[in-house]
Amino acid sequence: MEQASAPTSKKGAKKAEAKAKKEALKAQRAAELATATANVSLEDDPAKDNYGNRQTTAPAFSKDAEEVEIRSLDETYNGKTVIVRAWLQNSRVQSAKMGFVELRKGGNWNIQGIIVASDEEPIVSRRMVKWVTSINPESYVAVEAKVKQPLEPVKSCRVSGLELHITKCFVLAPAPAMLGMTMGAASQPIVNFSDEKAQGGDVDAEKAAKATAETTTPAASMLTHLDNIAMHKRAPVQQAIADIRIEVKRLFRSYLEARRFKEFEPPCLIGAASEGGGNVFRLAYFGEEAFLAQSPQFYKQFEIAGGRERVFSISPVFRAENSNTPRHMTEFTGLDVEMEIKESYTEVLTILEGVLLSIFRGLQERCADEIETVRSVYHSEPLLLPEPGKEVRLTFAEAQKLLREEGPAEFANVRDDEDMSTPQEKALGEVVRAKYKTDFYVIDKFPETARPFYAKLDDAGTTVGDGVRVTNAFDFFIRGQEVLSGGQRINDPAELEGRIRAKGIDPESAGIKEYVSVFRQVGVPPHGGGGIGLDRVVAWFLALPSVHLAAYYPRTPKRLLP
Amino acid sequence: MEQASAPTSKKGAKKAEAKAKKEALKAQRAAELATATANVSLEDDPAKDNYGNRQTTAPAFSKDAEEVEIRSLDETYNGKTVIVRAWLQNSRVQSAKMGFVELRKGGNWNIQGIIVASDEEPIVSRRMVKWVTSINPESYVAVEAKVKQPLEPVKSCRVSGLELHITKCFVLAPAPAMLGMTMGAASQPIVNFSDEKAQGGDVDAEKAAKATAETTTPAASMLTHLDNIAMHKRAPVQQAIADIRIEVKRLFRSYLEARRFKEFEPPCLIGAASEGGGNVFRLAYFGEEAFLAQSPQFYKQFEIAGGRERVFSISPVFRAENSNTPRHMTEFTGLDVEMEIKESYTEVLTILEGVLLSIFRGLQERCADEIETVRSVYHSEPLLLPEPGKEVRLTFAEAQKLLREEGPAEFANVRDDEDMSTPQEKALGEVVRAKYKTDFYVIDKFPETARPFYAKLDDAGTTVGDGVRVTNAFDFFIRGQEVLSGGQRINDPAELEGRIRAKGIDPESAGIKEYVSVFRQVGVPPHGGGGIGLDRVVAWFLALPSVHLAAYYPRTPKRLLP
Repeated sequence: MEQASAPTSKKGAKKAEAKAKKEALKAQRAAELATATANVSLEDDPAKDNYGNRQTTAPAFSKDAEEVEIRSLDETYNGKTVIVRAWLQNSRVQSAKMGFVELRKGGNWNIQGIIVASDEEPIVSRRMVKWVTSINPESYVAVEAKVKQPLEPVKSCRVSGLELHITKCFVLAPAPAMLGMTMGAASQPIVNFSDEKAQGGDVDAEKAAKATAETTTPAASMLTHLDNIAMHKRAPVQQAIADIRIEVKRLFRSYLEARRFKEFEPPCLIGAASEGGGNVFRLAYFGEEAFLAQSPQFYKQFEIAGGRERVFSISPVFRAENSNTPRHMTEFTGLDVEMEIKESYTEVLTILEGVLLSIFRGLQERCADEIETVRSVYHSEPLLLPEPGKEVRLTFAEAQKLLREEGPAEFANVRDDEDMSTPQEKALGEVVRAKYKTDFYVIDKFPETARPFYAKLDDAGTTVGDGVRVTNAFDFFIRGQEVLSGGQRINDPAELEGRIRAKGIDPESAGIKEYVSVFRQVGVPPHGGGGIGLDRVVAWFLALPSVHLAAYYPRTPKRLLP
Repeated sequence: MEQASAPTSKKGAKKAEAKAKKEALKAQRAAELATATANVSLEDDPAKDNYGNRQTTAPAFSKDAEEVEIRSLDETYNGKTVIVRAWLQNSRVQSAKMGFVELRKGGNWNIQGIIVASDEEPIVSRRMVKWVTSINPESYVAVEAKVKQPLEPVKSCRVSGLELHITKCFVLAPAPAMLGMTMGAASQPIVNFSDEKAQGGDVDAEKAAKATAETTTPAASMLTHLDNIAMHKRAPVQQAIADIRIEVKRLFRSYLEARRFKEFEPPCLIGAASEGGGNVFRLAYFGEEAFLAQSPQFYKQFEIAGGRERVFSISPVFRAENSNTPRHMTEFTGLDVEMEIKESYTEVLTILEGVLLSIFRGLQERCADEIETVRSVYHSEPLLLPEPGKEVRLTFAEAQKLLREEGPAEFANVRDDEDMSTPQEKALGEVVRAKYKTDFYVIDKFPETARPFYAKLDDAGTTVGDGVRVTNAFDFFIRGQEVLSGGQRINDPAELEGRIRAKGIDPESAGIKEYVSVFRQVGVPPHGGGGIGLDRVVAWFLALPSVHLAAYYPRTPKRLLP
């Protein structure tokens, strides 16, 4: 396949290259013009006090001008004189006497500005028109303007029913003549998430070329985006993703706080690699060794032991896994929950199901605009949620049976006592969607072979496959991808030590010993909980092509900057 | 001084040791009794289904019994049958037919339970009375009981107007016969914060003995507390501190969100030790080197460059400083703020002053109970706050003048162009309190010698001392101790590079180069912000003897566990 498509792919790459060159040349010309303009002496310009480069605007504006944010501009401002600070994102010269600029602020709030030469007060000279329309895109400006209604709505702007008639304009922070990545490029969907510099003629280049063919601006790779972090973040799609991420945390917190959960902060630095030594970061610590936490698991249990009843945390976790995929990062954010159990671990399952449904429904309700902005770049179907009361909870054995009977032929022999692979999970997601009309579901009662030592075996002694015990542990999925892992934990120290031995771990090993000792210190009530990957929830709710897009500063084995 | 006090100190240590031995012996006897009781066959006890050790309570309780939390028990429950799950914290045998237990849950919510032998349904046998009153303290129990009003209020319990007449009692998670630290000891003020095992006859032992003399239970060192983390956390004083810490974060977040600040998450893993290489943790990272963030400084500025306008973060930060003091930790939580400036950096100062005052006033209002609980163990005076509109803002030069003129003689020659030492800060705190009647104040316009390279010099070109320029940078203090550091940052890349060189740093060095490059990528608006140490705010608001008490799991050069 790769061989056959090589010519097309090379052609695509060349086309993309040509476009990029053309754009670079255009930017270069704009830069030369800007420099030329900047060097003109303004001394003899009657409008000279109304424009230019400034560090502060303190004395420059009219006393009756009101400072306002673009998002707040509505018809009540019609006819008023305002001060607006924003990024200048486009400009166009209509004639020597007239030009247009587009001003942006607050994600994707933008408005059109007009500048017209005038001999009457406030004086706007032709030179000023030229200067303003030559400002480098993405410069930060402050303008004074009269708000007016345009002859017809400005379709290209979110504030379409008003425009700004500019009478003063100062550049507070100039952008360079040539941006490392234009707003147009930053707003294209990223198709290349590799951390390697792109090679000509590869599959990614083909994809990029395809994306380019459909638009006017070439797409950039994730590498280019991160090398131009400010432009990456300024793109409305990234602003929207960041806003959605904030809302996920807010919904998580408010659902739990309303149910008497208390926040706590687990440590990042820990004294022992207690949960699997392979993927843990190690560091020198005053003559000893320290480790970075792979999860707050032990610490949230300590909170329960310490009498906190119901806790949650939002904290960074670390995995020293050399996986260069769009699904993996070395640092990500965990949303963790732990709670006392009164009668049954299903109390935990119900709370966690409730918090995730509250997040998904809350996003659809509160972030409709942001979701639309993201979908305009990364198309996706809305997440299909179960009707209230019709949540789907399958046992692991039921899920495997479903996959055997209704899934692809390759999964006709999956076993009830072995963990699912990622392709199995994906396939199951499609079967469940077709059968139950939902993208969100729970798989419960995992076999103990697929769970860590602290997972509690179910009371009934149920076994699956070759006599493997099942646990009171579960995973939650959206679109066939795991977003939460949880269950009941063992709270009896003897039982815990037994399971540790059964898993072939030495109960006296560093970290494990101290962990078990906490259960011996005091009576620890029955408890359970779960952990949600924040980055994955955001990425998969939006069906983004990479979890890296959901992170503020994605960390991968090859990238620690910026 | 130490020589002279040695005998007293040794005596104190011995006294403490004797007390501890006595308590251990008492616990040992209780343990033997408990074991003896547990081994009795219950088969012929008519009440045998009403008590015992259980893992789950599912079928054990009456159908009409209502599950309730101790904190929710009020007079509407009088006469009702309830189920209560809680820690049993004390028990007392009145006679062979009657005993008392104290049940605790939810910080310091407790209630008295009574158990009386009865031949009528529900049957309570004498053996059951003995068994219940022999349960090891800090075991987790579930009881069924009838709620009644006591003859007179139970002074020792927070729910004093009701008591529980116990008819069923199950131990869900037994505590050991001998606790590593009793609740009594856990509730004493800690006087020894050293990470070294205590040596007989030292100053700490003397302090401990003094504390012991005033109470019935010996105090334990911080080391003992952390070795018994569950008991440390269960103590009402620590529950109250944790609740206050949560409220600080909540107040911080809500004040800022109401003013359009957006949360973000800075990375912990970074590619360069950009802010002073000395105190940074280093780790191996897939063949390269990574560092742990010492502050989110650069990243919050990147958010501003990326168009986020106003941001805050709540994130762990790390310092590899070998300081074994009650003021230092190697991992702590930073509350960080960064915002665009429109006209003046005082906009930033005003927001930060507002957020801290909102936190302090909010705590006094919302956490009165918790503050009282803390003060009952660690006595302190309420934090004196300025009246609204009378906030104290001094320039650095004014503060130094005040210290020279009204402070202790040793500070009669402090200079306006040199940073303050910790003792100077403390002394100034007392002078300010005496003069302005406030424990909270701002010192502004620090000399550039005392600030990092990114601090913006003031526009007026003001100098102090030997011609040192002042900056638009400030610190906030409570009780003479710094809790916030902030100011305006340089947003012009050329100016930034100039300051970097002036500070003797190579602008091409790792981290610095990438930092400056972001300001060249785009126009970055004028901005400023500040960083608050969450642990210090909690500790110093409450005047705790160590910042370690404010942390969930304090990390010091000698302690990474639990």
